[in-house]
Amino acid sequence: MVENVCVFCAIVSGNAPASVVHSEEDLIVFCDLNPITRGHLLVVPKAHSVGLADLPEATGQRLFGTGQRMAAALRRSGLPCDGVNLLLADGEAAGQTVFHVHLHVIPRHAGDPLRFHTGQRGASRSDLDAVAGLVSAVL
Amino acid sequence: MVENVCVFCAIVSGNAPASVVHSEEDLIVFCDLNPITRGHLLVVPKAHSVGLADLPEATGQRLFGTGQRMAAALRRSGLPCDGVNLLLADGEAAGQTVFHVHLHVIPRHAGDPLRFHTGQRGASRSDLDAVAGLVSAVL
Repeated sequence: MVENVCVFCAIVSGNAPASVVHSEEDLIVFCDLNPITRGHLLVVPKAHSVGLADLPEATGQRLFGTGQRMAAALRRSGLPCDGVNLLLADGEAAGQTVFHVHLHVIPRHAGDPLRFHTGQRGASRSDLDAVAGLVSAVL
Repeated sequence: MVENVCVFCAIVSGNAPASVVHSEEDLIVFCDLNPITRGHLLVVPKAHSVGLADLPEATGQRLFGTGQRMAAALRRSGLPCDGVNLLLADGEAAGQTVFHVHLHVIPRHAGDPLRFHTGQRGASRSDLDAVAGLVSAVL
């Protein structure tokens, strides 16, 4: 494969192989090459956007709608699927590795290998209020 | 708080405290009580849906659109934010703990505590094709 060609654009144009589940006007769904669980899908806009900042909001909305339908299909597919994660990584700091925006649809079942290590812990109400103020100020 | 009352419904109705960032017709955005990183937000439909299966697709689309706008706002907010994860956990097997559907919007930065342990590894093309066939058959 030629360097500097986006691998997802190559799949959209038929110049790279993929196991395609579904194609519609502006979105394509195919299997992740390195699945976390069997049935791990990617929903991908056909037009190249790097991330959320350059993704038209209407396309983002359809991306999620299609992800929701894929989640339902996974639950009906016969593959092990007791739950589903929808996950989008926007930016390298968020774990994005292919810089063409994509939504992961990951079927989950007891004992599967996916673990979120979050370090979550409580915050004070005053800090949460300060955060809410910082974000709402720039909406 | 009375047991058996959904905590997110209680927030929507004003009967439980929350640090609210934004409210629109059918969605509310507030700070996660146990943030993974400072600025961790939840986008929540005001009407109770347990998960993706009983969430109207139009609401799901707006959920994502609002999540996308929150991601942009976090990048402008002054909080540490070099990337953003959008994450939805549908079902206990997927890590859902509050059974009122919600989209996490998590600002990310180098050195933050969130880690995805995925166990990802390659799959054969023939298995990926089999998976694609199982899912596309039930669309």
